[in-house]
Amino acid sequence: MALLVQKFGGSSVANVERIAQVAAKIQRFHRAGDQLVVVVSAMSGETNRLLDLAKQISSTPSPRELDVMVSTGEQVTIALLVMALEKAGVPAVSFTGWQVPIRTDSAHGKARVLDIDGAHVRQQLDAGKVVVVAGFQGIDPDNSITTLGRGGSDTTAVALAAVLKADECQIYTDVDGVYTTDPRVVANARRLDRITFEEMLEMASLGSKILQIRSVEFAGKYNVPLRVLHSFQDGPGTLISLEQENSMEQPIISGIAFTRDESKLTIRGVPDTPGVAFKILGPISAANIEVDVIVQNVAEDNTTDLTFTVARLDYEKAMDILRKTAEQIGARDIAGTTSIAKVSIVGVGMRSHAGVASRMFEALAKENINIQMISTSEIKVSVVIDEKYTELAVRALHSEFGLDVPTVAHA
Amino acid sequence: MALLVQKFGGSSVANVERIAQVAAKIQRFHRAGDQLVVVVSAMSGETNRLLDLAKQISSTPSPRELDVMVSTGEQVTIALLVMALEKAGVPAVSFTGWQVPIRTDSAHGKARVLDIDGAHVRQQLDAGKVVVVAGFQGIDPDNSITTLGRGGSDTTAVALAAVLKADECQIYTDVDGVYTTDPRVVANARRLDRITFEEMLEMASLGSKILQIRSVEFAGKYNVPLRVLHSFQDGPGTLISLEQENSMEQPIISGIAFTRDESKLTIRGVPDTPGVAFKILGPISAANIEVDVIVQNVAEDNTTDLTFTVARLDYEKAMDILRKTAEQIGARDIAGTTSIAKVSIVGVGMRSHAGVASRMFEALAKENINIQMISTSEIKVSVVIDEKYTELAVRALHSEFGLDVPTVAHA
Repeated sequence: MALLVQKFGGSSVANVERIAQVAAKIQRFHRAGDQLVVVVSAMSGETNRLLDLAKQISSTPSPRELDVMVSTGEQVTIALLVMALEKAGVPAVSFTGWQVPIRTDSAHGKARVLDIDGAHVRQQLDAGKVVVVAGFQGIDPDNSITTLGRGGSDTTAVALAAVLKADECQIYTDVDGVYTTDPRVVANARRLDRITFEEMLEMASLGSKILQIRSVEFAGKYNVPLRVLHSFQDGPGTLISLEQENSMEQPIISGIAFTRDESKLTIRGVPDTPGVAFKILGPISAANIEVDVIVQNVAEDNTTDLTFTVARLDYEKAMDILRKTAEQIGARDIAGTTSIAKVSIVGVGMRSHAGVASRMFEALAKENINIQMISTSEIKVSVVIDEKYTELAVRALHSEFGLDVPTVAHA
Repeated sequence: MALLVQKFGGSSVANVERIAQVAAKIQRFHRAGDQLVVVVSAMSGETNRLLDLAKQISSTPSPRELDVMVSTGEQVTIALLVMALEKAGVPAVSFTGWQVPIRTDSAHGKARVLDIDGAHVRQQLDAGKVVVVAGFQGIDPDNSITTLGRGGSDTTAVALAAVLKADECQIYTDVDGVYTTDPRVVANARRLDRITFEEMLEMASLGSKILQIRSVEFAGKYNVPLRVLHSFQDGPGTLISLEQENSMEQPIISGIAFTRDESKLTIRGVPDTPGVAFKILGPISAANIEVDVIVQNVAEDNTTDLTFTVARLDYEKAMDILRKTAEQIGARDIAGTTSIAKVSIVGVGMRSHAGVASRMFEALAKENINIQMISTSEIKVSVVIDEKYTELAVRALHSEFGLDVPTVAHA
């Protein structure tokens, strides 16, 4: 008998048929003797319908009132799911955020969880009930309803799992787990049985949008084992936890992440004085543009070249700013391109294995792929390359690091 | 400067345009210096949409969960109205039932208000804000959301007005006041400036469906002046209060009510023994059929005839029961008809005026309208007549009791 927190997102509860399917799945766990807390999102489309109503009234609606309104989406789902569970003979009860209560700060629309009182939930669990909790919402010190922002239902689930000391927090999605890379690019990409929190964070921030980064950070902080599963297919999914895989054949690399959403800007021939990086990047940040990879080289003539990447959407704006900066600081010229891709290898195995980066560079060189920028962290190496080589690079690296062949038995 | 509680129903907030119109109306009161508590219902159609969703899941949904779901309708409206008020430059804040809090018993779907804490509302009023409260909902001793049942928003408004000792509780509707009778039947029916709680109760229960009976009872009990007004037309409406009109020409009759929703059943030649009425009507009540007018006569041969009316929808069912009863108790025969109408004159003036009933009967006799049944209360006389004479009877009585001509100046 385990205590499980399960989270079903908007597409898993999109209509009454799917809600009935979710109820049937929960019923199986309940019959097996598990204690269950189920966190649900609004039926898909509902949050946008409500936001649209608000927009019709005001272009700048009060954040407090937006939360009052938007939070009704999950409130409807919890009631419907409990009805479906009761119809299936499973005793259940619903809780809104304030009924738990899930206490947050007052940052409406993006509130942070401060504290959860698990007593009421525990009481209902002990009474043999499945407890269905509205995701994405809480209550602030003034008794106002708050929402945690998009993807906040994942955070609700993880936070509840932490407070209740659940055995596992299961996130049900439209994929059956975390893959070594995007299966649409590499046909024999492989579902990972396990991955660490750190690896998942690097994978998530690099474009594998299965889980909200915030909820993975949260899970890591409180060591809540997270499992990604498919809502309507059976399977073991992928377990995200603190520990590495207990396998003799520990893989060095867990996955290959990539993104085509970036663009590259270069400023050349800048007189190399202290604080030059700040002079160049300060105005970019001030315009609310996030800078990702940064590379700086000092040339022999005592000038410096600086290259950085920003989201492709911000490219034009960033170029305008950079042009003005170049004039002010007397740079030689600027250049930029949007046809780049960033490809990364991610794996905690890197820590204990030397030469992983050079093995990556060699694999790319074999395919005649030129590397434009390099950025490294403890468990990740990223390269920026010409966009047209994206698939080729991902496949080459997937193969080079042995990800095509399962290294552990499937459960 | 007055403290007003205003209630706008579902059709007054049916869409964003109407919500903006309601906001504009509230703005005028706010500018005039009034303190305002505004109670709103769900946008029309929303409650039914939600109930329909529940029905798709289960034919017997849990009443607790139905309330969790249905209460979201008003929660959306309060947020939208506050947004519209803020856009119009009126500071405002929303409260759900539990945020007030409005404490009720646990009878989900038809909860009764136990207690309202007015402190939070008062605090916001004192801060210069319009307080927008979700109608129809509350919270029970277990912290579960409850609803007060259909029409419950009127009750919310009256209860808040009582607790806050408001100067007036204004109910905005799709009519501009209470009329002496249905204007569709009597073209020169007149809007009443004032009416007493008692009279309104008799008018409401007889088919003038402007206000929920329960909220009028509530208002009378706590002596909250109620005013019925049109949501989108200006005008003084009708004030419902404890006092009669302060006019020299006090009208004896305030209005003529009528209903065609009833049917009449008769059982004849029943041996007249004690308890015979119970033997006849007991089985009817046991079948959950409400009996309205009852008339019993004892004939010379020591048998009795009993005639009663029930809702037309229940006619067939009631006849079946009566047939069985007739056999059991040895009655001579039974009869029935659905082509009847009940016409009533209502007025507190009856208390101090003798002969009102006979004046009514005389007026009907003049028109050759045969009276089938008579029922009287302290401030009401009802007659059952052939349905085809309904309009004729209402017009004759409207004229006879001087309701065609205004007896007080219009405001």
